[in-house]
Amino acid sequence: MPVHELRISLPPWVEELVPWERPHADEDDRMRLAIRLARENVLRETGGPFGAVVFDLTSGLPVAAGVNLVERYQNAMLHAEVVALMLAQAAHRRYSLHGGDLPRPALVSSCDPCAMCLGATLWSGIGDLECGATRDDASRIGFDEGPVFPASFDYLEARGIRVRRGVCRAEAAAVLQIYRDRGGVIYNG
Amino acid sequence: MPVHELRISLPPWVEELVPWERPHADEDDRMRLAIRLARENVLRETGGPFGAVVFDLTSGLPVAAGVNLVERYQNAMLHAEVVALMLAQAAHRRYSLHGGDLPRPALVSSCDPCAMCLGATLWSGIGDLECGATRDDASRIGFDEGPVFPASFDYLEARGIRVRRGVCRAEAAAVLQIYRDRGGVIYNG
Repeated sequence: MPVHELRISLPPWVEELVPWERPHADEDDRMRLAIRLARENVLRETGGPFGAVVFDLTSGLPVAAGVNLVERYQNAMLHAEVVALMLAQAAHRRYSLHGGDLPRPALVSSCDPCAMCLGATLWSGIGDLECGATRDDASRIGFDEGPVFPASFDYLEARGIRVRRGVCRAEAAAVLQIYRDRGGVIYNG
Repeated sequence: MPVHELRISLPPWVEELVPWERPHADEDDRMRLAIRLARENVLRETGGPFGAVVFDLTSGLPVAAGVNLVERYQNAMLHAEVVALMLAQAAHRRYSLHGGDLPRPALVSSCDPCAMCLGATLWSGIGDLECGATRDDASRIGFDEGPVFPASFDYLEARGIRVRRGVCRAEAAAVLQIYRDRGGVIYNG
C-alpha cells in the first residue's frame, strides 16, 4: 500500500535536555550542546552519533534541536541537521530562516554536514554553519559524507554563509568513537 | 515555543492521480508520470513545479510519489524527491531501498536533483536515477540547484547508481515555464 503521510517527533528526552532559556554566547558553548545531543542519542540508544541545533545568534537561544533519527523512523533523510532545520522552520512557520524580522540563524552540527545536509543548510536560509567533527572523523568509523567537495563550502560562502569547521573537534569526534565501540549501525544507503 | 513534531502528507489528489497498479515499462513512461505530478502541482496550486516517483524497476509499479511541498509546509527540505524517498522508505519500513528482498528501485524526478536531493538519493539506496529537466532549465526560471558538480554525479555512479538525465526534457522543462508564467514563488533560501 502506498504511504501518504509521515509523522516524525523527537525522542522526549531532547526537549528536557536542551536549555531553551539559556543564552549560548560563544561557538564552543553552542557546539557543546550539539555534541551533548549526539552523545545522549548514542547512550540512550535513540539513534546515530549526531546532534544539531539551530540557534538565534542575536539572543544566543536555541530555536530547535535535532538528533539523528534514521533508524528510529527507517528514514535515510532524518540526519540531525535536517531534523533541526525542519523543526526550526516549523517553529517560525517559514521555509527560510533568513531575512525580514528574523534574527541571524546558525546551524550548529556535531559533525561536518553530508551532501544532503549541506544542501538543506543552503535552502534553509542559515547564516552561520558551525561544525564539530570532520568528514575524516566520520569516515574513519565508516560513515560516507557523499559528494561534498571544497567547492561545496565555497558555494555556501559565496552566498553569504559563514562556515566554521573543527569547533571542539576532539570532543565531537569522541562521540563517534563511543558509537563505534558500542557496535552502532553504519547506515549508508 | 520549540516544536518537536512534524506531520507531512501529500495533497489528496496525488493518490488519485497515480496509477498504482499499472506497470511503467520504459523510462519515458516513468518520466511522464513524474512530469504529470509536477504539472498538476502547479495547476492545482499545491506547490512548486517538481514531481518525483520511486518505481520498483522489476514490476514497473510506482512505490511512492512526491511533489514539491516547500510552501505548503513552509519546509525548505520538502522537495519532490525527498518526499517520494521518505514515503517509499515508510512503505517498505526500511531506510535503504536497496538490497535484501527488495527489487531494484529507481528515483524518477521531473528535474535534475539539487545538492540536497542528490545526497538523499545516495543515502536511500536508489539504484537508478532518471531526471527530466536540467539544472540549466531550472536556473533559467530562477531556481538554484546548489553545489552540484559533474563530480557529484560521478560520485553516485562510482557507487553503482545508474544516472540518466534529460529524459523527456522538453516536456519537463515546459512545466517550469508554466510555473514561471503564473508568477510562482522561487523559494531559494
